[in-house]
Amino acid sequence: MAIRDLTSERLYVDSGLSEGQHIVLSEDQAHYLLHVLRLTAGASLLVFNGRDGEWRADLKDVKKRGATLAVIERVREQTAASDIDYLFAPLKRSRLDYMVQKAVEMGVSRLRPVITHRTIAERINLERMRANVIEAAEQCGVLNVPDVSEPVRFDKAIDAWSDGRTLIFCDESASAEAPLDTLAAIGHGPLAVLIGPEGGFDPVERNLLLSRPFVTAIWLGPRIMRADTAAVAALALVNATRGDWR
Amino acid sequence: MAIRDLTSERLYVDSGLSEGQHIVLSEDQAHYLLHVLRLTAGASLLVFNGRDGEWRADLKDVKKRGATLAVIERVREQTAASDIDYLFAPLKRSRLDYMVQKAVEMGVSRLRPVITHRTIAERINLERMRANVIEAAEQCGVLNVPDVSEPVRFDKAIDAWSDGRTLIFCDESASAEAPLDTLAAIGHGPLAVLIGPEGGFDPVERNLLLSRPFVTAIWLGPRIMRADTAAVAALALVNATRGDWR
Repeated sequence: MAIRDLTSERLYVDSGLSEGQHIVLSEDQAHYLLHVLRLTAGASLLVFNGRDGEWRADLKDVKKRGATLAVIERVREQTAASDIDYLFAPLKRSRLDYMVQKAVEMGVSRLRPVITHRTIAERINLERMRANVIEAAEQCGVLNVPDVSEPVRFDKAIDAWSDGRTLIFCDESASAEAPLDTLAAIGHGPLAVLIGPEGGFDPVERNLLLSRPFVTAIWLGPRIMRADTAAVAALALVNATRGDWR
Repeated sequence: MAIRDLTSERLYVDSGLSEGQHIVLSEDQAHYLLHVLRLTAGASLLVFNGRDGEWRADLKDVKKRGATLAVIERVREQTAASDIDYLFAPLKRSRLDYMVQKAVEMGVSRLRPVITHRTIAERINLERMRANVIEAAEQCGVLNVPDVSEPVRFDKAIDAWSDGRTLIFCDESASAEAPLDTLAAIGHGPLAVLIGPEGGFDPVERNLLLSRPFVTAIWLGPRIMRADTAAVAALALVNATRGDWR
């Protein structure tokens, strides 16, 4: 890992990437490169699309509201995506942005908002969430851009669960068993991590979870955490025991 | 652990705590309880001082700018403090607040700001940092309030190191060894976790670190992280292998 370097310039694009290709930037992308990053014609940057690895590209044909990228050479091969779902109860706006960024930095493959009884966010702006995911991927050197699912009611998500994926549930009422021991006892196969709302799941929701065979509760120590802290902590343990930190 | 419950009311006080005691609140404390939390005479809350455990207290003698707390009964015994130093390069204001809160939630015992060549924060407001530590401790059910040290230059902190404490350094250039294996190989004794500035340590600083026998570099996966994310991730692994998450 690296601590983020604030000087890196990296852009997500939709189109395919191959040598010699020219990409016409959208107005928003051109604005970002020309007026936020203040790049000028001839500047080099990194581009990626989540499929074809990372490429060096040069900024060309700079006009007032547009520009083109000339794709020069591949600098990183596409890596295999991890397979960790991240289920979370959305928080209010700025805190939610933060939570989404953190999940991308921790390498989840899908963000799945779930609406619980105590979920605080009144309305979920999926476009904003997707834009946040892309921005975090740009800044954090991620080659695989996580998917963002439509929000679903928590009980429906549990009822529709496909049993092959283990759901790791950060349970505020779990007994104090070492989380590394709990994680070591989970069988092979894909994983999901669930972080509840601030204030916790209500008793009906918690019982629903604990009644399902695909659910494993883990304990994250004796202190109270904000939801985004618990998410990073749980994903660090999952990455270290089962993910790509090995 | 519990995800933070936004309805809990908890106050740090300086004075000793014992049954039947009366505490005259400072103007700031009275303002917080009466006008921010909107408590009225007779309301119960939790108080702690970092030494005598956690007590239930009742709000009394409410006046326009003051009030008294009557200490009723102890509800939690004081717990033993952990012994994890947290060394970090301060970030700019709002990000620094966040970083301090996270460290408290993760149970560090001392916050030690270090000034590196690439540290961004121009001026460090220690009063604000201490206030932030107390606020995070109030919100996160922490009984031991971490100390905040005066900022020191990074090289001086390393030169003055007392060898008994292992310094775990989240190294962006570390070889990809599983961090749980690295942590398992560290001997007993007190620990410190060091998170560098965004943009990383400069080569002179990194060589200084790697030349010291008390330093262990750990790798935190293939992605780039913000400094506060790396801090939570590293402290989660340390708590799970060596701290109070066992």
